[in-house]
Amino acid sequence: MAALPSIRGIREMQAWSDHARREGKRIVLVPTMGFLHEGHLSLVREAGKHGDCRVVSIFANPAQFAPSEDFDSYPRDLERDVRLLTEERVDLLFNPAAEDIYPAGYQTYVDVEEVSRPLCGAHRPGHFRGVATVVLKLFNIVRPHVALFGLKDYQQVRVIRRMTEDLNVDVDIIECPTVREPDGVAMSSRNRYLGPAEREAARCLQSALGKAEALVRGGETAARRIREVVVDEISRQPLARLEYADLCDPRELHPVEEVDGPTLLALCAWVGNARLIDNRILGDDEP
Amino acid sequence: MAALPSIRGIREMQAWSDHARREGKRIVLVPTMGFLHEGHLSLVREAGKHGDCRVVSIFANPAQFAPSEDFDSYPRDLERDVRLLTEERVDLLFNPAAEDIYPAGYQTYVDVEEVSRPLCGAHRPGHFRGVATVVLKLFNIVRPHVALFGLKDYQQVRVIRRMTEDLNVDVDIIECPTVREPDGVAMSSRNRYLGPAEREAARCLQSALGKAEALVRGGETAARRIREVVVDEISRQPLARLEYADLCDPRELHPVEEVDGPTLLALCAWVGNARLIDNRILGDDEP
Repeated sequence: MAALPSIRGIREMQAWSDHARREGKRIVLVPTMGFLHEGHLSLVREAGKHGDCRVVSIFANPAQFAPSEDFDSYPRDLERDVRLLTEERVDLLFNPAAEDIYPAGYQTYVDVEEVSRPLCGAHRPGHFRGVATVVLKLFNIVRPHVALFGLKDYQQVRVIRRMTEDLNVDVDIIECPTVREPDGVAMSSRNRYLGPAEREAARCLQSALGKAEALVRGGETAARRIREVVVDEISRQPLARLEYADLCDPRELHPVEEVDGPTLLALCAWVGNARLIDNRILGDDEP
Repeated sequence: MAALPSIRGIREMQAWSDHARREGKRIVLVPTMGFLHEGHLSLVREAGKHGDCRVVSIFANPAQFAPSEDFDSYPRDLERDVRLLTEERVDLLFNPAAEDIYPAGYQTYVDVEEVSRPLCGAHRPGHFRGVATVVLKLFNIVRPHVALFGLKDYQQVRVIRRMTEDLNVDVDIIECPTVREPDGVAMSSRNRYLGPAEREAARCLQSALGKAEALVRGGETAARRIREVVVDEISRQPLARLEYADLCDPRELHPVEEVDGPTLLALCAWVGNARLIDNRILGDDEP
C-alpha cells in the first residue's frame, strides 16, 4: 500500500493547500486529536463524499485541557493512526508540533460566548476557548472547503458552527452521527481508560438516554421529570458519577423546561478516570 | 470621473474577492471607520504599491467602543468619503451594515491578551477585543493579500500583527507612518471635536514627544525622567488632561525603565471631548 503522505510544518501545509486549491481541488478536513477509532474513521469515509482531497489532522491540543485535566495521559498511538489512515487512503496527514501551533509568546484566543457556557463549558473552564482557537487555526492552515465533526461532541459542533458563522469563515461544517460500540457505548478515545467493570458501567449513559426518549415518546414533556429519570438511571450504577444531565434547545443550548419540539439531552458522567459524554436529540421524529 | 464601485453585502464582497483571486489579482485592503483624512488617504496611495485591487472598507465598529464612549457622535460623512475615494480611483468601497457584521445572536470575539493590556487597553476595556474581532472578520470577508494600517494607532497595529501571526491568518500587514497637520498634530477623525483653542492645545502631545526625543538624544536613559518631562509638558496646557504617558518596548509593549534601544513613547490626552493619542519611537536613529 502506498505510504501516507504527511506534513508537519505550518508553511508547508499552507503551500500544499494553496496548490490544491489552484488546481481546483476541494479540500475536506477531519480534525482529530489522534488515537483514532471507528468514530473518526466514519468521518474520514464520509469526507470522501464532500471533496477530492481528504486531509486528517492529528493534534492533541493543550489549549483545550485545563491544568488539572488529562492532557498528559490522553492516549496517543501515532503508528497505529498512520496505519489506519493509510488503509483509508486519505490524501494527507497533518500532524503539527505543539511548539509550532503555540510558539513562545502565543496570546490570541477565540471566545464563542453563549454556546460555550452551559454543559461541558460550565465544568471545563477555557475548554471551548481552546477548541475554537485551534479549529480556527487549523482552518487557516489547512484552508479546507469542508470540515467534518462528530455529534458525540455536540456542544463542540455548536461552538464551531457559531464561530465560523460569526467570524465569516468560509468553511462548510458537516456534522456526523455518533458511532457506538455494539453495546451502545459511544466511541471515545477515553474509553481506553476504562477497566472491564467500568466499561460495563459506561453503558448507563446510553441506557439513560434511551429511558428519556421512551418517556418523551410516552408523552412526557416536563424536562424536570425526564431529568429525574436520567439522574436515577445513572445513580443506580455505583461506578458512575454524574457531572451533568441537561435538557436544552439544540441550537443555542438554552435550558428548556418543556419538551415541545426536538430537545437536546446532554449527559456527562465520570466512570473511573474517564470523563464520558453522550447526548441524544429527544423527540426528533415527532411531527 | 467613473463612479466608485461599492459593495455592502458580505456574500457579495466574498464573491468579488474570490473572483479577483481566481484572476490572479492581488487584493490590498485599507480598513477605516470613515470620515477620511490625509492619514487614510496616505494608506490608500501606499496600497497601490502592494497590489492590483485596492479595497477600502468603511465601518464604524460598535464593538470597539465602550457604552460610555463616542460611538454615536463619531464623525461620519459617507458622501465626502466616496468623493475622496473616487478621486483616488480605488477599486472598491466595502461599507457593510452593522446588522450584517453583528447579526442578532452574534457572540464570537478574538482576544489578543498581552499586547492589548497596557496603554489604551488599560483605559478602554474591550476596545482591542473589538478591533481584533472586526479586523479578522474583514480579513475573512475581503480576503486581502495585504492590509495597511497607520502607526498613529501603534498599539492597534501590534494587536493586529500578533493576531494574524497567532491565528495563522495569511495577510501581510503593512504599517505606515503617522500623517500630521502642518503644525505637527497627528491626523485623526476626532480632531473634528476640537474648538479653535482646543485645536491649538492639542499641539502639546507632539511637543511632549519632541522634548522626550531631545532628552534621549542628549543622553538621558531613565524612563522615569523622560516621563516626568512629558507629564510636565502636557500639564502646562490647561485645556489638556493626560490619560497616560508610557515608555515600552516597541514589540511586546512591556514597560521599560531604561531607554537602551528603540523605545516606544505612547501618549494619550483628553482635550475637550476629544481623546487624542500619539506616539514616537525614541532613539530610533541611534546606532
